[in-house]
Amino acid sequence: MSETLVERLHGELSRHPHIDPHSHIEPQRAAATCLADILGYHYFTELAHSAGVPREQIEGDSLSADSRLDAVVGGLERFSNTVQHGWLLKIARDLFGLEAATVTPDNWRELDALVRERSSQPGWEDRVLAESRIEAVFLTNDFDDPLEGFDTNRYVPCLRVDELVFHTGKPGVLDRLSESAGLEVTSAETCLEAIGRTAARFRRGGARAAAISLPPSFRPELVEAAAFSRSFEAVQTHGLAADLADREIVSKGIFWHVAECCREQQMPFDLMIGVRRGVYPGGVFQGQDLLDGRLSLADYAPLFNAFPQVTFPVSVLSHPLNHELVSFAWIFPNVLPFGHWWYANTPAVIERDLEQRLEAVPRTKLLGYYSDMYKLEFGYPKFAMYREILARVLAKRFVVERGWSEEAALHLGLDLLVHNPRRVFYGDS
Amino acid sequence: MSETLVERLHGELSRHPHIDPHSHIEPQRAAATCLADILGYHYFTELAHSAGVPREQIEGDSLSADSRLDAVVGGLERFSNTVQHGWLLKIARDLFGLEAATVTPDNWRELDALVRERSSQPGWEDRVLAESRIEAVFLTNDFDDPLEGFDTNRYVPCLRVDELVFHTGKPGVLDRLSESAGLEVTSAETCLEAIGRTAARFRRGGARAAAISLPPSFRPELVEAAAFSRSFEAVQTHGLAADLADREIVSKGIFWHVAECCREQQMPFDLMIGVRRGVYPGGVFQGQDLLDGRLSLADYAPLFNAFPQVTFPVSVLSHPLNHELVSFAWIFPNVLPFGHWWYANTPAVIERDLEQRLEAVPRTKLLGYYSDMYKLEFGYPKFAMYREILARVLAKRFVVERGWSEEAALHLGLDLLVHNPRRVFYGDS
Amino acid sequence: MSETLVERLHGELSRHPHIDPHSHIEPQRAAATCLADILGYHYFTELAHSAGVPREQIEGDSLSADSRLDAVVGGLERFSNTVQHGWLLKIARDLFGLEAATVTPDNWRELDALVRERSSQPGWEDRVLAESRIEAVFLTNDFDDPLEGFDTNRYVPCLRVDELVFHTGKPGVLDRLSESAGLEVTSAETCLEAIGRTAARFRRGGARAAAISLPPSFRPELVEAAAFSRSFEAVQTHGLAADLADREIVSKGIFWHVAECCREQQMPFDLMIGVRRGVYPGGVFQGQDLLDGRLSLADYAPLFNAFPQVTFPVSVLSHPLNHELVSFAWIFPNVLPFGHWWYANTPAVIERDLEQRLEAVPRTKLLGYYSDMYKLEFGYPKFAMYREILARVLAKRFVVERGWSEEAALHLGLDLLVHNPRRVFYGDS
Repeated sequence: MSETLVERLHGELSRHPHIDPHSHIEPQRAAATCLADILGYHYFTELAHSAGVPREQIEGDSLSADSRLDAVVGGLERFSNTVQHGWLLKIARDLFGLEAATVTPDNWRELDALVRERSSQPGWEDRVLAESRIEAVFLTNDFDDPLEGFDTNRYVPCLRVDELVFHTGKPGVLDRLSESAGLEVTSAETCLEAIGRTAARFRRGGARAAAISLPPSFRPELVEAAAFSRSFEAVQTHGLAADLADREIVSKGIFWHVAECCREQQMPFDLMIGVRRGVYPGGVFQGQDLLDGRLSLADYAPLFNAFPQVTFPVSVLSHPLNHELVSFAWIFPNVLPFGHWWYANTPAVIERDLEQRLEAVPRTKLLGYYSDMYKLEFGYPKFAMYREILARVLAKRFVVERGWSEEAALHLGLDLLVHNPRRVFYGDS
Repeated sequence: MSETLVERLHGELSRHPHIDPHSHIEPQRAAATCLADILGYHYFTELAHSAGVPREQIEGDSLSADSRLDAVVGGLERFSNTVQHGWLLKIARDLFGLEAATVTPDNWRELDALVRERSSQPGWEDRVLAESRIEAVFLTNDFDDPLEGFDTNRYVPCLRVDELVFHTGKPGVLDRLSESAGLEVTSAETCLEAIGRTAARFRRGGARAAAISLPPSFRPELVEAAAFSRSFEAVQTHGLAADLADREIVSKGIFWHVAECCREQQMPFDLMIGVRRGVYPGGVFQGQDLLDGRLSLADYAPLFNAFPQVTFPVSVLSHPLNHELVSFAWIFPNVLPFGHWWYANTPAVIERDLEQRLEAVPRTKLLGYYSDMYKLEFGYPKFAMYREILARVLAKRFVVERGWSEEAALHLGLDLLVHNPRRVFYGDS
Repeated sequence: MSETLVERLHGELSRHPHIDPHSHIEPQRAAATCLADILGYHYFTELAHSAGVPREQIEGDSLSADSRLDAVVGGLERFSNTVQHGWLLKIARDLFGLEAATVTPDNWRELDALVRERSSQPGWEDRVLAESRIEAVFLTNDFDDPLEGFDTNRYVPCLRVDELVFHTGKPGVLDRLSESAGLEVTSAETCLEAIGRTAARFRRGGARAAAISLPPSFRPELVEAAAFSRSFEAVQTHGLAADLADREIVSKGIFWHVAECCREQQMPFDLMIGVRRGVYPGGVFQGQDLLDGRLSLADYAPLFNAFPQVTFPVSVLSHPLNHELVSFAWIFPNVLPFGHWWYANTPAVIERDLEQRLEAVPRTKLLGYYSDMYKLEFGYPKFAMYREILARVLAKRFVVERGWSEEAALHLGLDLLVHNPRRVFYGDS
């Protein structure tokens, strides 16, 4: 397989703007303003910590910003092999013009100055998005986010429901729901009604999806109204101290109701399946969660069956589950493989997962990639990485092995990268 | 790795006729007679449905044959990336002479005419088999199949026991067993005796294997005779309404007895492990089943240990389980990796599974491939696909990486494709 | 990707001596003295048996050594495809000078003579180690091994604790512990104290790690002292007949205590996770164990969290669990991917596992490879195999795909092969 073929495909794929259907961008602080905004990304802090930098040197309010940066930069060399380190260099060199081959204790202040300078220039966000070929970025909004003060065409709201589903009993959650929905939540019924109003408010506010991350132990199912009411009362009364059984019933009931709201609002419901929170409590901020592969998508069949009108973009965190994801998407019209998530977002894993998807799931259903980024600059190296892998897989599996024309292979790639996300989330045809 | 090397190996592999040790061919309607016989294959109907074609347009007696074809053909472009779509084109162009690059709403009638014309010519079955290099096709016969009216050298009977094992209590099953075995089934004992007679009848009728597909939850074990009798009575009395515990005991008992029959009759017992039936009840015919990877082949150790004289060709539906299959076949003399089944029968999955098997399981134990086909024409593209992958893996892993001669690599490939299936199912040395 | 690039990297990697951080070498009988020492390796006996050679012909005291060799050699051709067969040829040809292309019933006596001749020459061990680039070999020592009579710089002790943890109640185990620790074990307390003394004795004797293999069902957790005492008494009284619950509590308690000893002694604790013992009792010696992938490394989070000061080199037996291993090593500072173990020690599996590790785990934490050998000669083909795969992955994933210089890729490879094992087990920086 010639590198030239790969390069041509990569070049063509890189010409087309697309949406980024999942991120954690804060629309009013979208771009980085200093190096700490870049190196504060959990991938760098957690890898530095994993490689031996003590947590106390990486985070903690008593530290100066400089000493925190010193700590993380000091650890970079120890994970210079990782793809995440590659993202950093691509940002530093391509977006900010660092000339050094890598970021070191000796040159990070120079890079920090470059970040501060460029990002303060007018139009920096536009430029980063243009370089990344991203024309719209989906957000991750709390259910009580007012969705105001930003351009919702560029920064597209997405209703994140983890808190409502899994932390219903946490102090403040139901109060915030009451207030944001404009309806006093006093019962199971009013809670569901308030969630319905929230979904409608999000839809009116430009939201194009709801989303949730789910632990491996979660089993979606319809809960009887009476049982839900009883358990809801228990959770309302006892909060986090309610019985586990009651909390689980409330989680299942609200989750199911969100799916109903998605049906009503005609919004896709992104399922991000398989994360275990807080596995490493000694880890850095956002570097404490892991995965556990002991689940099957068969657990979600009740949901997929009950909501044929709802589109479920599905991400799995455990690489071995990709084969189930491919198989379920091959059969269920409403199950769509969605990007490459977190611990499954590294090149060799993406490549294996992608080639399985491309040969067995209808091309119209493959939602190629999302950045999952917290700062706008990360869309650039992440999508670049994905396009390279996509070009390589198209070249090998379709042009070389199956004898497709380059043009046909390119068109298939553009379905994943450009057309499908547009159609699925915007209803464009 | 040069494409020429791959092509040479592929060319050599393609010269040798072989058996097809698992299919669903109906021997008296083996070949397709019209395009509906081709496009009615569940791979096409389920992928069209998955890609958005409503089930009501695909199947249902009130539809005309033409409108059903219109519906499926209308969906083809949406899954033109899949390997299954590739099978269709290979059949249409190579076997039936379609000249168009693909099958479209505008040309399917032309293809239908070609299918009708060619398949009505004398010797069509012979020609399809010859093009596919298949010299004998194993069937999937109900336990009460009379095994009459066809050439059992070409169409080799195989005793499928799913119904006996898992649907013992379904109305009619035991009556059909009584009748076909010529023995009134009135008790656990007579049931087992009737199954023994059935196995003997099949063996006399040319059968070369028994076969069963198994859900992920199945756990084979020896059941005490008394417990089996009690549960059998319950199932006989209450049918499908019998307690789950009784039904499970009956399943285990009959399954174990089938293994005993295989020992007596010296027949391999094909185990196809890991399918969950009816996961998507809204799916099209034969497009409702899926998989669930939560099992271990260690669950089958009691069976493998109890029947050292029985050969178990084993297929797993979940790709991650291939590593267990390789490991168990590496240790147990009677466990043989068997083909690439259903959701695991796509090129990138086959390639990974195959290269693991080839480097760790004795070459004499690798049963390369079976078509699983319902119509004879599908053996052609499926075996062609397999041979291409096999050639590629032999070239890369053996010739290039391990320095084998092409001839040695070819011989290894022929063991999988030709020699082993012959020896294992026919006892040829 | 050019083969020349791979060869250059392989050549460079092969110039550097390194340690072998896990083996089963007996230091006073380290090298083979005859062909039976080579072909008696379980890989050959179990594969011959799996391929149809009866166990009775392979082992059993009543057989002559020659007839046993005849049996295994007679089976070789049936697994000539396996990588293990490749190891044999590499040893026979490169180390012992066999000129024939393979080992056959006709030439094994010649090979046997070559083995006897060369291995009896002075300096044979030195020469084998030099050819293998191995400068020190870690052992697997019983807890009551006196650690005397060998050079512990070359043959480095390692405290293997399987017996203490899982067979506490086996007749003789506690007596041996009493004697070797110089402390009468009469209670839970004295047992833990004796284990502590054992760990200290090993450390003083040059041990650089403790190690254990663990079944898939094991769940490490802290056991209350009182519960441990009660269960220990039950195990002391009833031995193997003690209740399973008591035996499990004793296993958990002793395991946890070993981790505490490792913390005190500043020794890494090697965890080899996922083996099921005795799955195939009809198998040959050491060819009866298999794997079962139904576990998650999340089960080990309590251990990793409780002992941040202990380094845990972790091997998993099930290939699909490599993704969890990568993810846990990416987050937990004290979890280090350790080699490629047993059923996961074949080229295609190593390649997949390695490329995932290399792109997501800090380079300083990757412990490349160990031989797991019983006789010194096997370090030669096993490390050679690993270096070839490592060269290939570095060439493809780093030089070609990520644009690294060859020198940088080589340095990364040397971290895995040479530097990290040195630093982790010796504390060298």
